[in-house]
Amino acid sequence: MSLESIRYTRGKLEILDQLLLPLQTRYVKVQGVEDGWRVINKMQVRGAPAIAIVGCLSLAIELEKDNCTDKKIMRQEIEGKLNYLVSARPTAVNIKLAAEELINLANVLSAAENVTPNDFKERFISSIESMLAKDIEDNKAIGNYGCEAILSNLEGDGQVRILTHCNTGSLATAGYGTALGVIRSLHASKRLEHVYCTETRPYNQGARLTAYELVHEKIPATLIVDSMVSALMNLRKISAVVVGADRVAANGDTANKIGTYQIAIVAKHHGVPFYVAAPLTSIDMSLTSGEKIKIEERPDREMTHIGEHRIAAPGINCWNPSFDVTPASLITGIITEKGVFSPEKLNECIPT
Amino acid sequence: MSLESIRYTRGKLEILDQLLLPLQTRYVKVQGVEDGWRVINKMQVRGAPAIAIVGCLSLAIELEKDNCTDKKIMRQEIEGKLNYLVSARPTAVNIKLAAEELINLANVLSAAENVTPNDFKERFISSIESMLAKDIEDNKAIGNYGCEAILSNLEGDGQVRILTHCNTGSLATAGYGTALGVIRSLHASKRLEHVYCTETRPYNQGARLTAYELVHEKIPATLIVDSMVSALMNLRKISAVVVGADRVAANGDTANKIGTYQIAIVAKHHGVPFYVAAPLTSIDMSLTSGEKIKIEERPDREMTHIGEHRIAAPGINCWNPSFDVTPASLITGIITEKGVFSPEKLNECIPT
Repeated sequence: MSLESIRYTRGKLEILDQLLLPLQTRYVKVQGVEDGWRVINKMQVRGAPAIAIVGCLSLAIELEKDNCTDKKIMRQEIEGKLNYLVSARPTAVNIKLAAEELINLANVLSAAENVTPNDFKERFISSIESMLAKDIEDNKAIGNYGCEAILSNLEGDGQVRILTHCNTGSLATAGYGTALGVIRSLHASKRLEHVYCTETRPYNQGARLTAYELVHEKIPATLIVDSMVSALMNLRKISAVVVGADRVAANGDTANKIGTYQIAIVAKHHGVPFYVAAPLTSIDMSLTSGEKIKIEERPDREMTHIGEHRIAAPGINCWNPSFDVTPASLITGIITEKGVFSPEKLNECIPT
Repeated sequence: MSLESIRYTRGKLEILDQLLLPLQTRYVKVQGVEDGWRVINKMQVRGAPAIAIVGCLSLAIELEKDNCTDKKIMRQEIEGKLNYLVSARPTAVNIKLAAEELINLANVLSAAENVTPNDFKERFISSIESMLAKDIEDNKAIGNYGCEAILSNLEGDGQVRILTHCNTGSLATAGYGTALGVIRSLHASKRLEHVYCTETRPYNQGARLTAYELVHEKIPATLIVDSMVSALMNLRKISAVVVGADRVAANGDTANKIGTYQIAIVAKHHGVPFYVAAPLTSIDMSLTSGEKIKIEERPDREMTHIGEHRIAAPGINCWNPSFDVTPASLITGIITEKGVFSPEKLNECIPT
């Protein structure tokens, strides 16, 4: 069965601590927005959709305990806390969009005269809770559309070999996954021969998390280091690359985990189709191109150490951007819950 | 000053213990062939040229102390000890070839009537000592030719930014280095603005050894993970890539540390010149192309663990080729001690 990275019931939220995986499976309690900010910032929860859901659920937990009866104060607190949560990881767009929607909802509920403070609280919390179910449903749709698109490129009913980068599975979403959801769908259709996952330095999400999910689901898989992608494509026929997205601009340029751009270049060099799997919430139509995307830089220590063990020479400088931007020209298609779009046709799925 | 991995004066040999790098800098005394065998076997010294030189120098140390006056016994002892040294790392070819040459020399000196036992000893030891000087001299020539080639591409007398992969420096050779020798020459010419070195997964030779050498020499340098090369080339203007080679085929196809091929593809994509720096002894004119080069696969554990620390999910399969082949079409030039050759002109530097 699929892994549960987020456990939620009204008033109670726990997340699977991804920093301890794959060696330990331990859940962390999230008792309010400060805990929410901390688990996002420390990367105990990661993946753009999961970040958005955990952030918003942490607010639901806090509201549940709150006995405020003044709608204006409630509205003001909600706005402040959502902005605070967004600041935990600046590149992920999903939590920013979710926060904007929720702030709009708070404005509407606050202004509506027939809504009592209790109604406000109830409807606001329910709205957050529905994000969890919707994310899983959207991922399943992404999985099916992606599976169809990849198989439609094949001659006959052969088996496919897929490469993926970073972690976009149950651990990065509310469940099922985006790029890993496509892989799950292919596996369920019995058309998947093999998956190759990159270890995804410096934080090893591929080696730790994707490999963990693939072993857990008994999907035939092989781990490679990030620099082996070209050698792999040269020696074995890869049917497609499928990756996730932290943010997609209106023109299709895609910010995703560092190394994605490199894989897109080598996929093009080897004639391998390159897909981005992302819910519509990852598409930011207000950004005309990827150049406008702010790239977060992470601490050197992620590169120089593994746990407490130093692996790099003392005194060396590091450059540690967390993401890179893959230009639309290298992307075959963007797989969403509404279908697969070529980058130039993205505006057909989201009205600007 | 250059990092000294091998410290030698007549009668005295010390090697820098590479097992302790980058956290400790400690030299180990080598007082004869038994010590020589041990440091090679334990991998306290690594890199094929360095292994050959340390092995032969350990024999020179032992001969220096020896007061034998019978040339036949000397010849016999030399042959036995060289065969013993070769057994320390049975797959290292350079020490085997060096041993064969030295055994031939011992045969000649032993048979020559006008050579006294003292002459024998002196000429034999000098011959070993010359290996050290020759390797450094060849590396310096490579450094200078590479420096010239890179600067000749520049407009004006600007500064260059170089990317390198793996370790090709003082630690892998008798001193100075091949690709790192080119970087040293650029630095000495005051034309080097910055070096970027990849960590070089899975064995981290870049993060451990190259970074250590660059910090030691105070060369301005930044460590990146292997998948950041494309993002780096996109954001900062890289003047050239310089890497080493394990083996170069007659057509210029080059086998080198895994990841080299990927860097060559992304360099081409970004219009960055890509150079291979290698002594003529690395060019194998008997191989018509890189396709004939067998790819060695290493144990999974190099990928799944850092020291005793497991970093990959238990149960995942791994693919761990230790090198890849970069086709000649992606190589701007091959920098040798005789000059820089485009791949198709390699036959001008080595008569077939």
